Amino acid sequence: MDNNRLKLLKQYIGKPFSGSPSPFAKWLDGIVISASEKSVEFQFTVRKEMTNPVGMLHGGVISGMIDECIGVTFFVMGLEYFYPTINLNVEFFSAAQEGDTVRVQTQVVKQGKTIINIKADMLNESGKILASATSNLAVSGIKIPF
Amino acid sequence: MDNNRLKLLKQYIGKPFSGSPSPFAKWLDGIVISASEKSVEFQFTVRKEMTNPVGMLHGGVISGMIDECIGVTFFVMGLEYFYPTINLNVEFFSAAQEGDTVRVQTQVVKQGKTIINIKADMLNESGKILASATSNLAVSGIKIPF
Amino acid sequence: MDNNRLKLLKQYIGKPFSGSPSPFAKWLDGIVISASEKSVEFQFTVRKEMTNPVGMLHGGVISGMIDECIGVTFFVMGLEYFYPTINLNVEFFSAAQEGDTVRVQTQVVKQGKTIINIKADMLNESGKILASATSNLAVSGIKIPF
Amino acid sequence: MDNNRLKLLKQYIGKPFSGSPSPFAKWLDGIVISASEKSVEFQFTVRKEMTNPVGMLHGGVISGMIDECIGVTFFVMGLEYFYPTINLNVEFFSAAQEGDTVRVQTQVVKQGKTIINIKADMLNESGKILASATSNLAVSGIKIPF
Repeated sequence: MDNNRLKLLKQYIGKPFSGSPSPFAKWLDGIVISASEKSVEFQFTVRKEMTNPVGMLHGGVISGMIDECIGVTFFVMGLEYFYPTINLNVEFFSAAQEGDTVRVQTQVVKQGKTIINIKADMLNESGKILASATSNLAVSGIKIPF
Repeated sequence: MDNNRLKLLKQYIGKPFSGSPSPFAKWLDGIVISASEKSVEFQFTVRKEMTNPVGMLHGGVISGMIDECIGVTFFVMGLEYFYPTINLNVEFFSAAQEGDTVRVQTQVVKQGKTIINIKADMLNESGKILASATSNLAVSGIKIPF
Repeated sequence: MDNNRLKLLKQYIGKPFSGSPSPFAKWLDGIVISASEKSVEFQFTVRKEMTNPVGMLHGGVISGMIDECIGVTFFVMGLEYFYPTINLNVEFFSAAQEGDTVRVQTQVVKQGKTIINIKADMLNESGKILASATSNLAVSGIKIPF
Repeated sequence: MDNNRLKLLKQYIGKPFSGSPSPFAKWLDGIVISASEKSVEFQFTVRKEMTNPVGMLHGGVISGMIDECIGVTFFVMGLEYFYPTINLNVEFFSAAQEGDTVRVQTQVVKQGKTIINIKADMLNESGKILASATSNLAVSGIKIPF
């Protein structure tokens, strides 16, 4: 199979994924670190508007970064049909603050005909784990048009 | 106890919670619908930058709205110490699109000395459930300064 | 549709579900309290072999009772194909001990073509919530032979 | 610290953990494969009474095996106070059947003062992953008497 979506993503390695079809991804403004058919890695910089009342990266934005990276992972699997996310479980371990950079690494755990399970970790610059997540996506009848 | 945080939130009923100490909350720009010591309700309008590649409210933003509302619920419980979120489980049922308004309703399920469990539902304008979540928060030794 | 599986279960109301095709269900030995196409209720008695080192109902057995009741809920929905469980999230709130009876109440939250989401609560005799769970089941190509 | 509980468990390596203080553990009848302060491995044989209506290891028993192994992991951490389990998230990937042996491997992901996060995988004899789980435990004021 000719995986054009993976090729597209790889063109952005080391740069912001400005070609993302996801408006929220643009707000998150992640840099592509690596990409394969089963795993992607993005780096994000924590901006003020991503923080909570105590100046830390908001749990909702952690969840957002992770969910977005899981979506990109699915995207570059090169499948024909959409698999909407059916659930996302996030465990929060440690905090990051404004100005910090964090990385999200994903991994396809199971690729079934109906269900795809993808996990993700968020690490800080020292490699300390900040959050861990798992998500299930379920096949739909809708073809991906791009 | 004089719950000043709940009083503060109630002053914003029907309006955006512009007094929120959370920068990400300002980005989400939710309107306070109701607030009590065990439950809050917020309404959000889906903006373009909150959407995914197919024009729907991004799962990461759904998670973000829910996590923020869970945080506000904790905030108005009037407790002395911070309870950081330790996990968030979100189930996605149906989609919303740009321009739609969605509501998040929370409920404290269990208030223990160490752990607080809060659940949340997201509904659309017709009252259809779009997402459902549960979250645990664990006590810390850090006093809330406001 | 003639829902023979629901009819079968209803014959056991007030009695142990001895006609269950599930060997583990027989070990759990639950009494059917009520049954409909979207919800079932079972009562279980906590036996010694179901307890943990401090004499409480083991979290693994709580999970087992809940998972079994979710399975029965699916069973009486009367569907043609199996929907294997893809995930189970259990929150533990309070304990039960040997000799106690506990009840598990389920509810179908979403019935999609691909995914069924079912939630469950476990209550004690006083109606206090002991545990809460949510589970997703995904359609398979395997017909249910009974 | 002299970790007597870890020493106790290590005496059972290669044998059933008949010295377990957990009655449900005895029902599960797992063999200790390995044990350290941050990880344990148990092997279980799937008995008839552990199966579901289609002859496969019941999801509730998978959850039970995993929860028990997470409990043992906590037990051998050698801590002074109980940390009751507050939630368990299990993802089911593949099936095992009567007569099969399955292994559960655990790992402490985070050990905080208030919260301990432990993950677990269940594998079959070929090393294929059958299920994956994550669990949070929260400190209590109750001393462990053994």
